[in-house]
Amino acid sequence: MLQPPPAEPGMREDEVDTPALLLDLDAFEANLDRMAEMVAATGARLRAHAKTHKSPVIARLQMARGAVGQCVQKVAEAEALAWGGIPDILVTNEVVGARKLARLAALTRIAEIGVCADHPAQVAALEAAAEAAGVRLKVLVEIDVGPGRCGVRPGPEAVALAERIAASRHLRFGGLQAYHGRAQHMRTPEERRVAIAGAVEDTRRTVEQLRQRGLECAIVGGAGTGTFALEAASGVYNELQAGSYCFMDADYARNGEPPPFAHSLFVLTTVMSAPRDGAAAVDAGLKALAVDSGLPLVWGRSAPEAGGVGYVGISDEHGTLRWEAGAAAPALGEKLRLVPGHCDPTVDRYDWYVGVRGGRVECLWPVAARGAMQ
Amino acid sequence: MLQPPPAEPGMREDEVDTPALLLDLDAFEANLDRMAEMVAATGARLRAHAKTHKSPVIARLQMARGAVGQCVQKVAEAEALAWGGIPDILVTNEVVGARKLARLAALTRIAEIGVCADHPAQVAALEAAAEAAGVRLKVLVEIDVGPGRCGVRPGPEAVALAERIAASRHLRFGGLQAYHGRAQHMRTPEERRVAIAGAVEDTRRTVEQLRQRGLECAIVGGAGTGTFALEAASGVYNELQAGSYCFMDADYARNGEPPPFAHSLFVLTTVMSAPRDGAAAVDAGLKALAVDSGLPLVWGRSAPEAGGVGYVGISDEHGTLRWEAGAAAPALGEKLRLVPGHCDPTVDRYDWYVGVRGGRVECLWPVAARGAMQ
Repeated sequence: MLQPPPAEPGMREDEVDTPALLLDLDAFEANLDRMAEMVAATGARLRAHAKTHKSPVIARLQMARGAVGQCVQKVAEAEALAWGGIPDILVTNEVVGARKLARLAALTRIAEIGVCADHPAQVAALEAAAEAAGVRLKVLVEIDVGPGRCGVRPGPEAVALAERIAASRHLRFGGLQAYHGRAQHMRTPEERRVAIAGAVEDTRRTVEQLRQRGLECAIVGGAGTGTFALEAASGVYNELQAGSYCFMDADYARNGEPPPFAHSLFVLTTVMSAPRDGAAAVDAGLKALAVDSGLPLVWGRSAPEAGGVGYVGISDEHGTLRWEAGAAAPALGEKLRLVPGHCDPTVDRYDWYVGVRGGRVECLWPVAARGAMQ
Repeated sequence: MLQPPPAEPGMREDEVDTPALLLDLDAFEANLDRMAEMVAATGARLRAHAKTHKSPVIARLQMARGAVGQCVQKVAEAEALAWGGIPDILVTNEVVGARKLARLAALTRIAEIGVCADHPAQVAALEAAAEAAGVRLKVLVEIDVGPGRCGVRPGPEAVALAERIAASRHLRFGGLQAYHGRAQHMRTPEERRVAIAGAVEDTRRTVEQLRQRGLECAIVGGAGTGTFALEAASGVYNELQAGSYCFMDADYARNGEPPPFAHSLFVLTTVMSAPRDGAAAVDAGLKALAVDSGLPLVWGRSAPEAGGVGYVGISDEHGTLRWEAGAAAPALGEKLRLVPGHCDPTVDRYDWYVGVRGGRVECLWPVAARGAMQ
């Protein structure tokens, strides 16, 4: 069941029902503008990753600033974007299973669609799905440039798979997918530089070997919010797939030399139990916040040891705030903004973005691909 | 947007699209039966907690076996149950905010509704909402019996709040809410015994003091899947609020002397990238599984060190399986059942339960209160 929106346009922020997913529109738009400027200064294109925002509305705002399309991880996400009018979508992931492949092939009737493969069996399945649907599917070869998750080995293995794709009547070879996910959250700039230097070399070598076999890579894609400046400067990658930059989160903010973007995404929460003994309960817990990258921060307050308020404990529907004696204690019923530890899986819990500006609700946008796991 | 069901009745389990929330109906029904038997042997009643299952269908199956009603944590959960025909619902939580209280009061027109309070300001707000709606609201006093999250102190503070409720023309005093959440996952039976013994004494004393002031507790509620036998045997608690027993999860299974229920809830996942070097990627990651209580287990396989397969790493849309040389490696496209680390927040990611029996899909049930955070 779709949940009703927790607010209406025109309301004051403190009237928004909680927990709610709040988008600070000034900070959000500034993030979009900043990324557009940074990418324009390079030879690369932005294909923003919608696994973060799951919204055709946000996708269009990114594309109005120059993004050439969107990335997704799942077929169901691609559907939500294509149905919402996004014309160019790349599934930066392998897709396995006949039902999913039929859905993917069907989408090529209304949008430019690409997908990745890292095994001949997947290529055969993509071929069968494209043939059955009477379409031609664009397929990229994913190479493993370090994370050790998906992807064939760079070099000859990738070339063999690309040749298999290019030889198919029902497929088109679309290029290389070369994303180093683990590098995004490496804490020092030097670790990230070394990791991406390795990814760039693997990718450069593979692009060159493909070229020698007559295969040009229309897309050489990768990069995220933590490293995109490195891939952009490589001269090898031509598409940057950053997603989190539009929102930021507590984990990205912990990177050394963090990405140059502001927190724009918050979970609004209410103090729901009477504060006592330097502690209070709020109404946003494990179901409202992803905690894989740590607990949220209380926005606008310093840490408890610095006289502020911390979010120090979590259970299914509750969070525990704590503060030292003498701190300005939150009041029963008070609403607070929390900065999620990890933006992507937090967004995925909500049906609605509540866009706020100047203390007022300006807009509601559906999280159209919420729960789009397939 | 509601996601389409990942299966249809009659399909084989291996045809179900993934990730999917799978309910093994034989194990699930055996859990319901076992709990009904165990509770029937005590003087207490079961009021099962719907924050686990979020489904009026499952609520009705519990009530057909003797449960007297349902618990929820959120007003939006109470709506999903009441709209689905559940006649008796207790919000085992404080509710703060005028919009939520108006929604709660409206529900009393179609169901017996109760709610908790732990502060006079909440009682005043409940009173105003009940008066505005022209209804009488049942209010329980929550006492803190150990977890230190919500609730007034047992004894005189609780009595004073109960008297405040009982004196209102628009409210009814409904009893005590005395849940020790933290005790559910204490690892040794002795720790749990000591924690609940303390909770029982606090509760017994408060019930007695209320009685001396002429206030009877129709409901003395608490207990969860980890401790319900202790509260049931106390002679003080008359309603048990266990929820997870119907599904179980990897975390409850780690309790010493774990609850006597079987794993019935699984996330079905597909091996989506070519296995190599003793590892493979599956399509269920952080968005498909709650990891606050640890990574999932691979069902039917021993740990990697015992010749089996482990789920050892997770990212937003991927999990990493690992196995030792010589183990039976999962194949590309193979589907595996995972036991979630924590059932409640895992269920909350999905729109559909896929009920399976004997290798076939028997039914689809909506997770009606999915995302019901308010």
